[in-house]
Amino acid sequence: MFRSSALLRSLAPLGDRVLVRRAAKETQTASGIFLPADKTKDPNEGTVVAVGPGEKDVTGAMHPTTLKSGDMVLLPEYGGHKVKIDDEELFLFRESDILGKFE
Amino acid sequence: MFRSSALLRSLAPLGDRVLVRRAAKETQTASGIFLPADKTKDPNEGTVVAVGPGEKDVTGAMHPTTLKSGDMVLLPEYGGHKVKIDDEELFLFRESDILGKFE
Amino acid sequence: MFRSSALLRSLAPLGDRVLVRRAAKETQTASGIFLPADKTKDPNEGTVVAVGPGEKDVTGAMHPTTLKSGDMVLLPEYGGHKVKIDDEELFLFRESDILGKFE
Amino acid sequence: MFRSSALLRSLAPLGDRVLVRRAAKETQTASGIFLPADKTKDPNEGTVVAVGPGEKDVTGAMHPTTLKSGDMVLLPEYGGHKVKIDDEELFLFRESDILGKFE
Amino acid sequence: MFRSSALLRSLAPLGDRVLVRRAAKETQTASGIFLPADKTKDPNEGTVVAVGPGEKDVTGAMHPTTLKSGDMVLLPEYGGHKVKIDDEELFLFRESDILGKFE
Amino acid sequence: MFRSSALLRSLAPLGDRVLVRRAAKETQTASGIFLPADKTKDPNEGTVVAVGPGEKDVTGAMHPTTLKSGDMVLLPEYGGHKVKIDDEELFLFRESDILGKFE
Amino acid sequence: MFRSSALLRSLAPLGDRVLVRRAAKETQTASGIFLPADKTKDPNEGTVVAVGPGEKDVTGAMHPTTLKSGDMVLLPEYGGHKVKIDDEELFLFRESDILGKFE
Repeated sequence: MFRSSALLRSLAPLGDRVLVRRAAKETQTASGIFLPADKTKDPNEGTVVAVGPGEKDVTGAMHPTTLKSGDMVLLPEYGGHKVKIDDEELFLFRESDILGKFE
Repeated sequence: MFRSSALLRSLAPLGDRVLVRRAAKETQTASGIFLPADKTKDPNEGTVVAVGPGEKDVTGAMHPTTLKSGDMVLLPEYGGHKVKIDDEELFLFRESDILGKFE
Repeated sequence: MFRSSALLRSLAPLGDRVLVRRAAKETQTASGIFLPADKTKDPNEGTVVAVGPGEKDVTGAMHPTTLKSGDMVLLPEYGGHKVKIDDEELFLFRESDILGKFE
Repeated sequence: MFRSSALLRSLAPLGDRVLVRRAAKETQTASGIFLPADKTKDPNEGTVVAVGPGEKDVTGAMHPTTLKSGDMVLLPEYGGHKVKIDDEELFLFRESDILGKFE
Repeated sequence: MFRSSALLRSLAPLGDRVLVRRAAKETQTASGIFLPADKTKDPNEGTVVAVGPGEKDVTGAMHPTTLKSGDMVLLPEYGGHKVKIDDEELFLFRESDILGKFE
Repeated sequence: MFRSSALLRSLAPLGDRVLVRRAAKETQTASGIFLPADKTKDPNEGTVVAVGPGEKDVTGAMHPTTLKSGDMVLLPEYGGHKVKIDDEELFLFRESDILGKFE
Repeated sequence: MFRSSALLRSLAPLGDRVLVRRAAKETQTASGIFLPADKTKDPNEGTVVAVGPGEKDVTGAMHPTTLKSGDMVLLPEYGGHKVKIDDEELFLFRESDILGKFE
């Protein structure tokens, strides 16, 4: 059987894809009240885990991704591919779909 | 837990995206009559908070955004990504979707 | 509160957008009969109030709008963004959607 | 009130648009039988009344329209913008939508 | 009244359009059995009656049509504009939609 | 009446189209069991019968098809134009829709 | 009858297509519990079996595929062509649809 153990740190996204780990769901409000699990939602922030080499334009010139591993990013509410690697949920986005970067 | 405090002023939009703070909802008419909350609607004006570096054309040349932080802009009725940063609702638009600029 | 008074004359459309004031609705027929309000419809003619700088082609070259402020234009039946500025309804069209110009 | 009288002969289509006057509906068959009005249909032929300057390609080069005023053309069954100018119905088509020309 | 008599032989298709006369419907099977009219269907073969000058590419260079008048062609099952000229039904196709040519 | 007898071997596909004869339906399983006719399905393999000259790119340069007559190919489950020539069913595919070639 | 025996190792995908053998379905959990067959799902990992020559850009220049035979890849949840060759199910994907590569 094919097992993906120890593969996570070596997954290389293709094209201009960016692999993102979403921030943990907030289960406690700012004022300290705990929320039941089904009231929490996926946070729209995350950390870049790995990036692809970039995308070729119509003339064949390669344009590298501008994000890099470790960047904290603002994610769109919808979109992205959920992938499960070693039982952890991660997300692959086209760099062009990522909204912003926290500096 | 991941908290976004103090991150607002440093959010850098990607591509040709523009981060906009909408003008406050009008809850009082010109003649001074107060409107109930559910009759107010999102105003179609706002202030640019931050802009991305711009967009590359098909030959790879970068075209910077023409709007800049502080510009007052006219927004389309629909579209844009609502993002919540530090409990404040802001909006990300493609510069090409912004209708006009007040000078 | 954000008020747009005195802003109208200084709204600069972005891109190849054209700001248009539609001709007044005709509420009287050619032969002098008054029409009830709900039989009148938006006329398909208007006057250009302001134009954007134009549109960049895929090589980045700018192509200025060919219409200019004051032009009388023929509008498509549908489309355009209705915007309300200082309680006046105006319309923003892409120049490429405007059908013709009266000379 | 805005009136379009005497404007018809000076309407200049924008882009590669072509202004067409459809041939009159045939209300009589070849053998001389009169058809009731609702059996007649818009003929698919017409005469070009005015043409736009043409269309720019992606490099910005202008390609003038090949049709000219007075040409008799074959029209597609659907499409085109119906416009009413001085109570006459005319039609605006993209030149690329016009099927053929009678020589 | 506008009559199209004698116009057929002089209809010039625009762009890369090709005017085609479909082969007659087969109302008799190979073994000589006559089919009732509603069992016959439009044959997918025809003869080119006239061709347009061709199509410009994005750089403005003209590419003439490769088919010519008299060619026998294989037509797609759907598509094409049915046009009625002098009470004869003909069909206009984009050359790129025509499937093949019998040599 | 127009008959296509003897035309098959001379049908020349247009553009980058490829004329394919599908492999015969399997009506017997590997272990020798005969299948009822309606359990059989079109096989996804075939033989190229004829190819078009190729396709022009946006600059007008011609790119010939890479498949040639006699190639055994893997076909997509859907798509392709079924054409009937001399009572034989053949299929026209765009070369770009053909999945692979058996070598 | 056309049989594809022994053809598998010689199937050459066309264009930028990549032929992939999915990893076996996991029918046992990490802790050793066997899952009933209908609870298992197609794993999103696989091994590249063969690749096409690549894809031409709009200028006709060929861009070879970057994946090669033997690469372990992360597949999108949907998409790809299921093909059955010698009773084995394989999948053809456009290289641009493959999400990432395990290194």
